[in-house]
Amino acid sequence: MADPIKTRLYVDSPLADGQSVGLDHERAHFLRHVLRLDRGDSVAVFNGRDGEWRAAIDGFGKGWCSLTVAEQRRGQDTTPDLWLLFAPLKKGRIDFVAEKATEMGVSRLWPVFTRRTDPNRVNLDRLRANAVEAAEQCERLGVPEMGDPLPLDRVLAGWPAERRLYLCAEAGMARPFAEVLRDAPGASGPAALLVGPEGGFDQSELDELVKLPFVVPVGLGPRILRADTAVVAALACWQSLAGDWTAGGSDRRPPFRAPAHSPPGQPSAD
Amino acid sequence: MADPIKTRLYVDSPLADGQSVGLDHERAHFLRHVLRLDRGDSVAVFNGRDGEWRAAIDGFGKGWCSLTVAEQRRGQDTTPDLWLLFAPLKKGRIDFVAEKATEMGVSRLWPVFTRRTDPNRVNLDRLRANAVEAAEQCERLGVPEMGDPLPLDRVLAGWPAERRLYLCAEAGMARPFAEVLRDAPGASGPAALLVGPEGGFDQSELDELVKLPFVVPVGLGPRILRADTAVVAALACWQSLAGDWTAGGSDRRPPFRAPAHSPPGQPSAD
Repeated sequence: MADPIKTRLYVDSPLADGQSVGLDHERAHFLRHVLRLDRGDSVAVFNGRDGEWRAAIDGFGKGWCSLTVAEQRRGQDTTPDLWLLFAPLKKGRIDFVAEKATEMGVSRLWPVFTRRTDPNRVNLDRLRANAVEAAEQCERLGVPEMGDPLPLDRVLAGWPAERRLYLCAEAGMARPFAEVLRDAPGASGPAALLVGPEGGFDQSELDELVKLPFVVPVGLGPRILRADTAVVAALACWQSLAGDWTAGGSDRRPPFRAPAHSPPGQPSAD
Repeated sequence: MADPIKTRLYVDSPLADGQSVGLDHERAHFLRHVLRLDRGDSVAVFNGRDGEWRAAIDGFGKGWCSLTVAEQRRGQDTTPDLWLLFAPLKKGRIDFVAEKATEMGVSRLWPVFTRRTDPNRVNLDRLRANAVEAAEQCERLGVPEMGDPLPLDRVLAGWPAERRLYLCAEAGMARPFAEVLRDAPGASGPAALLVGPEGGFDQSELDELVKLPFVVPVGLGPRILRADTAVVAALACWQSLAGDWTAGGSDRRPPFRAPAHSPPGQPSAD
């Protein structure tokens, strides 16, 4: 297996042997002055398309750093086709959702406004920065795509019929998620989870949701979970029973450990 | 079902019809000046032994509040016999672990020092305060007990042989947790989860752990999870396949929704 490299960076550039990659001011500063890396040192880079590559630092300038891509360390893998629809939460908790959902392997993070959603806007840049940082830490080879924040009604109006939407219900009306997944043929097909706001769904909203043919209400146990807890718990259920935590999925285990460092310019969830 | 009561309080006192319960300064202040409750208003109280009761406010004094317990709203239930052993994390993340593990229904929270655990002490009062707040919010009828923080070696030396210890492994050596639970007779018996520190277990420590007859290594998918993510994810796996999220468990669904308010004197996880 490849040597351990402590620093992983998500970049936009294409990655191929001999390709040059430029880093912006913040990352250049971080590599040079925080990690104290020097010309010739290696980092790992990935872009969500070309797998993970070793890249060597060519040099630093005033506010930039250039890398030359060397050899591929891992081929591109696929993450399960799993979307997370969630009602925006206040700052600390939404950071947490972006971080955790990325680690848990969602392919799309989609903020939706439900009738009782408290924050009425969402900072997509911040959401994306948290997702990038988590992807760098957790060995993912890509970053979840971001859905445009929209009212839930509008999202449902354009819903692709073949994608099952698991509604994380809190009102005791739903069968346990594990039981639903066990009995559902095609549970590992295109899927999405919907987690409501801290105040819960509006009853009329729930009534409308359960009438939709692609909606499957699922239960997450006898306690009332906070929205951010429900996100991780529901993702764990799906991944462990229908996703890439099953035996086949663990073949994609990455060959080396998480970095001790993450690059700057990304808000911390702490 | 009982009327909704917005405020739930964990108390130490015995609870029975007509019993008086005194609240300390902070809680008295919170009920009176933050929630603006008055004499005669109702709150819900629980102590982990006697179920949940409605209690009426008798009056406020200088730095105190007294309640009279009225009728029982729910009988005492049992939570699954599930311990969480975890290496202390830095402040924001350990608060999170206490909150999430309580919501996820652990019966004991046990900080253990592994060879690479970074914080070398743990604030048990803070841990407990976070657990109390989470129990009040999530409709639990009790608060997890706290294990004395000890080096992992010492905890293992006195381990009860009949309690399975699921080691949340990160090195790709373990079978998926869901598969282990499906194949294990008695998976819902006394159990414990062990989640290591951010830096991971030391290799010699892992080698020793897997030799112990009660240790079962389990895998949590192909990505490297942060320790706090692993806690929620592993608890979700266990609860949904062996714990009280299974069909029988959901009978214990609480009759009313989470409070909008939580009492003061408890650090927030945000």
